[in-house]
Order: sequence, then C-alpha cells, then structure tokens
Amino acid sequence: MDPVRIELGERSYDILVGSGLLGQAASYAGLPRAAAALIVTNETVQPLYARQLREAIAPHYRTVHEAVLPDGEKFKEWQTLNLVFDALLANGCDRKTVIYALGGGVVGDMAGFAAASYMRGVPFVQVPTTLLAQVDSSVGGKTAINHPLGKNMIGAFYQPQRVVCDLDTLRTLPPREFSAGLAEVIKYGPIADLAFLDWIEANIDALLARDVDALAHAVRRSCEIKAWVVGQDERESGLRAILNFGHTFGHAIEAGLGYGEWLHGEAVGCGMVMALQLSRRLGGVDDAFVARVTRLIERAQLPVRGPALGADRYLELMRVDKKAEGGEIKFVVISPPGRAVVQGAPDAMVRDVLAACT
Amino acid sequence: MDPVRIELGERSYDILVGSGLLGQAASYAGLPRAAAALIVTNETVQPLYARQLREAIAPHYRTVHEAVLPDGEKFKEWQTLNLVFDALLANGCDRKTVIYALGGGVVGDMAGFAAASYMRGVPFVQVPTTLLAQVDSSVGGKTAINHPLGKNMIGAFYQPQRVVCDLDTLRTLPPREFSAGLAEVIKYGPIADLAFLDWIEANIDALLARDVDALAHAVRRSCEIKAWVVGQDERESGLRAILNFGHTFGHAIEAGLGYGEWLHGEAVGCGMVMALQLSRRLGGVDDAFVARVTRLIERAQLPVRGPALGADRYLELMRVDKKAEGGEIKFVVISPPGRAVVQGAPDAMVRDVLAACT
Repeated sequence: MDPVRIELGERSYDILVGSGLLGQAASYAGLPRAAAALIVTNETVQPLYARQLREAIAPHYRTVHEAVLPDGEKFKEWQTLNLVFDALLANGCDRKTVIYALGGGVVGDMAGFAAASYMRGVPFVQVPTTLLAQVDSSVGGKTAINHPLGKNMIGAFYQPQRVVCDLDTLRTLPPREFSAGLAEVIKYGPIADLAFLDWIEANIDALLARDVDALAHAVRRSCEIKAWVVGQDERESGLRAILNFGHTFGHAIEAGLGYGEWLHGEAVGCGMVMALQLSRRLGGVDDAFVARVTRLIERAQLPVRGPALGADRYLELMRVDKKAEGGEIKFVVISPPGRAVVQGAPDAMVRDVLAACT
Repeated sequence: MDPVRIELGERSYDILVGSGLLGQAASYAGLPRAAAALIVTNETVQPLYARQLREAIAPHYRTVHEAVLPDGEKFKEWQTLNLVFDALLANGCDRKTVIYALGGGVVGDMAGFAAASYMRGVPFVQVPTTLLAQVDSSVGGKTAINHPLGKNMIGAFYQPQRVVCDLDTLRTLPPREFSAGLAEVIKYGPIADLAFLDWIEANIDALLARDVDALAHAVRRSCEIKAWVVGQDERESGLRAILNFGHTFGHAIEAGLGYGEWLHGEAVGCGMVMALQLSRRLGGVDDAFVARVTRLIERAQLPVRGPALGADRYLELMRVDKKAEGGEIKFVVISPPGRAVVQGAPDAMVRDVLAACT
C-alpha cells in the first residue's frame, strides 16, 4: 500500500499502514543515519513487540538501547520521562540518536517529547501499537506530558520522521482499548467526511471483529484526513482545532474522574455525544444526526453517558482546558454535518447538555 | 539606537540595546496580545528590577504574574522549572500568555524552555540583566535545563519575540559576573571579526569601568555577529557551532568542578585559551595570536589556567558533550584568525594542550 504523506515542507513524512510492517527492516529504510537507536516502550508492549522491532532496526545501527516505562496514563509525567533521558545519557547517546516510540498514545507522547527535548531535538519514529495511536496520536507531532493541574500541559509540536502502523498489533489489543481507538476513527466522520461516516456505520461489525481489510481502510482514511488537516495547520492556530471534537467535554471527564479511570478514547466517545447535543442546540445539526452518531458510538461499545461530576465541576474543568482563552471555553461544534467550527456557548446551554448526557 | 534584527523568516525578531529600556512601556509595544503575562525572575534580580518591568508592561495585560526562582546554576533543573509551570497553571494562564525572562542566562534558559513547552509553546520575551545574557544566551533561541549527567541536555530551540538589553542593568552586576560576560564578548573576535577584537583590546579598560558607550558598542556588535550566525543556521547543523568556541573545554571545567563552582563565562574564558593552544598545534594560528588573545582574557580578569582535573577526566567529560558524535570530541578551532572551524584532534595533542594550560 502507498504511504500516506504528511506535507509539512522540510518536516514532511510518511505514514506506512499495513500488516507485518513492524518486523520488516524495509519499514525503517531511508531514515537519518545514526550510530545508536533507543526503543522507548512500556512493560506491557515490550514482551510483545520489542524483540521484533529490535531485530528489524538492528541492521541500521551499531547499538540499539531500550527504555521500558511503566504502563499507564498516570506515568505520563516528568519522573517517568526522565527515565528516557537517563537511558540516553547513561548510554552516551549523541544528538543523532534515533528514538523509536513503540506502544500506544502515552508512549508516543512521552518518547516524542523526549525526542523534542533531548539535546534540543533528536529524530524519532512512531511505531504505534494501539488503534488510537495509529489513527490519531502518533500522527501530527503533538507530544506532551501531564501536569498535576492539567493534561498534556507540557510538551512540544515535534514531527516524527516516519509513522509505521502495523495492523497486526491491533490483534493483541484488549477490547476496551480497541473501542477507545474507534472513538477517534468515528470522530473523522462528523468533522470532515460523511462518506467515511457511512462506511464506518456499514463496517462497524467488521472493525470490531478486527477484520484486517476493514482496519486497513479505517486507519488509512483516518490518517489521510488527519494529514490533510495537520498539513494546513501544524501548530493548531486554526483548522487543526477541529480534531479536538469531543475533547473539551472528554478532557473534563478524564480530569474529573482522575486520569486513567476512563480511557482517553472512552472520554472522547462520550464527549462527542455531548458536543453533538451542543451542536444541535446551536443549530448546527438536527436530532436525527445526533441520534445517528450516538448510536454508532454505542455500537462501538463506548459510553454515551458521562459521569455525574455535577455541571459546576464540568465547567470549572473545561475553563482550564488548553483550548480555553481568557476563561472562555471553546467547543468544537458540528455545523453542518461533515464540517466543524470552534466556538463558545452560553453556560446555561452547556448545563442543559450536561443534564441531558450525565 | 536601531534594533539589531535576527532574520529567521516568520520567527524573526528585534534586539533592543540601550539605556533605560527595561522600564519603558515602548520597549514592549507591538508584541502578541494576551490577557496575562508572567515574569520569571530569580531572588537576586527580583528586588532590583521586577517592579520596573511590571510597571512597564502593565498597560499591555489585564494581569501580570510573577514566578521567582532560587538563584544559581544548580537550580537549572526540572524541579525549579516546574515552579514556572505551577505558576502558569495556578493562575489559569492560557496559551497566549506571554512569558518575560528577567535575569541572567539561567533565568533566560529556564523561562525560555518553559515558554517552549507550556501548552506546546507560548510567546516569550528576553529581558537579560547580565552581560553574558545580553551578548549571548538571550539571543538565538537556545533554551535548556541541566540533567545530573550533563549540562543543557534537555531543552528546545525556541525563539523569543524580542530581546530587550538595558545597559543600565549591567551597573549592578558583581565584577566576577561582569568578567564572565566579557568572555563571550571576546569570543566574537577570534571566530568572526578581527576589527572587533582590536576594538575590545583598545576599550577593555572602559568596558571594565562599565562605560555606557563602550558597553553599547560591545553588546550591539556581539548581537550583530550572533544574529548573522544564527540567521544562517538556527538549529546548529553547521556554522552556528563556531559560537561554541572555548565551550568544549569550558563545559568540561564546569562539569568537572561541579556546576556553579566557576561561572560559565569563566570556564569559557579559560576554555578559549585551551582552544587557542589547540588551534596553534593544528596550524590555524601562530604563537603571537595565542599570546595576544590570552593576554586580553587575562585583562578581562578571567582565569587562563584550568583546574587540575587530570587529562583523563577532561577527555571523559568532553566525550559526553552534546557536540561529540559517536564518541569523537568536536573542537571549535581558529583557522585563520577571524574564522573558526569545527574539527576533531588527536587525544595526544589534547593532552599536550591540557598539560600546558592546567
């Protein structure tokens, strides 16, 4: 299959999508030359795929080091990030060292931020092993760690040299994580591509059965849409914000429950239902569209009803979101179906949405 | 006085040099608009200049916050950096918040890296109050913190929106720090501008007396040379490395003694003497040139003889320097006077230099 290209001038790169790519040396050909590479992974993924990756990249480097992080969103913070710097420095890694992020979104975000910061920037390659990472977080160069007062508050825009999406890795994914990834796949429909939304509805059972052809199309089309958006707005000064559909409500759910209680994709799934309810109240979509997408999110085995944090707490959490400006909460609203805009909304309307969805 | 312009496309910015600039609202006109600003400074500089700066920028923002860090190179690490993130988040600062770095090189490096990383990047302004920061560290976008295993190992290339060099702040600088700054001024002569080297020699006494006209020329010409170099090679893939003249040896001195024992500029001053000795052995300069620049460094009240760490330790420390590649130490060598190149050197020759200079 042809790669999906992210066009960003001298920071352009390819996303490879297919079966068996992770273990093929060819997947890593043509990357910047270096004496050493460091694989950053976690305790769950390491036993499954680190050896395959190590053998595939070994021909390209004199030495391949490994940093194995604890698994979980709660480790997406400085102490754990520092394990990557420790590994780089303890092994005498220079500023050409290539970092490979092997794992899901947390590993990718942390390895990416480590790559952005180590000696002010070394090359890195994303090898995402979850659906969420393949269709969203590994593509587009957003890297970050959390701060006790907010998610993804400390990070960088830093593009990888390549993204290698091996569909075979999705077979080992627990059902809950797989569904969480589907939330980000579904997201691309309402914001950008109604034909893709139709396709997902028609193929949701095949996707849940992890049919490789269905997965190939879902991952590829998701990456194409993300590539198109990121290519126009790398640093989220405008258009790119539409990719946060469902995320304003979703981040409040994650923060309100404590990170890791719900998976990010679960919170986004439920957050999209809330954002659709808000879109209807703002006149962007009709009841039928809300019901249709809500039904799809439900079929993807995602929650469509939020935790009862209380509207005050939701509003408080959303006001400290990165997208807020001068205390005004910014929502991604569908208007009309297939297009998204970023706008504010009256508190009373948001409370009404929360009352309907929690 | 006309500003010095750093030409970096959409990341271009001005360096203002003059007396009394820090306290003038006009110095901060035309910067990105925001609801809030955060002044990052340290315990030494805060009582001297924070109020002036706060009053000058107050007209531009609804609120101006302050983060006061402990003073010293040993605090240039994650725990202290996190105080800046704590202040930003506790005050609900959004992604348009402008960070002002008020202080010397350590404050500038930390505030700059905080600005690069907070919400993946907010605007920042450098208000350097030391000679070293005015002629070197505040210009060019290098930001970083230290890691226990190496100096400036974690950071970003991130350009400020403006640099405001108020020469009046140099009056309060302790003599040792002033001399340390002179090391970076002297640096520009051998690597890029022999006429400037002549001028420094003729005006070293006026500079040490903090004559404002002499300071104005020294800061301005240093910034012009740095602007010219950085404009051609923002991310140090080539030419920019010449700005590290004296720094390979200098970093080894700092690391070997423990950071903060010698000031950075003191280590660079001595490191330049070592680099000149190496340049002579490699045929780039003659004895007279080495003696001439060494004498100037001495007149600037800087050390010209390194600590007796032992050659093995020097070599070990230099091999983990950021500029090293695959274990090979890279030196900035003068060849001929007024031009610098980056190259390796035989260990035996480096040992000979160290024997002569320690």
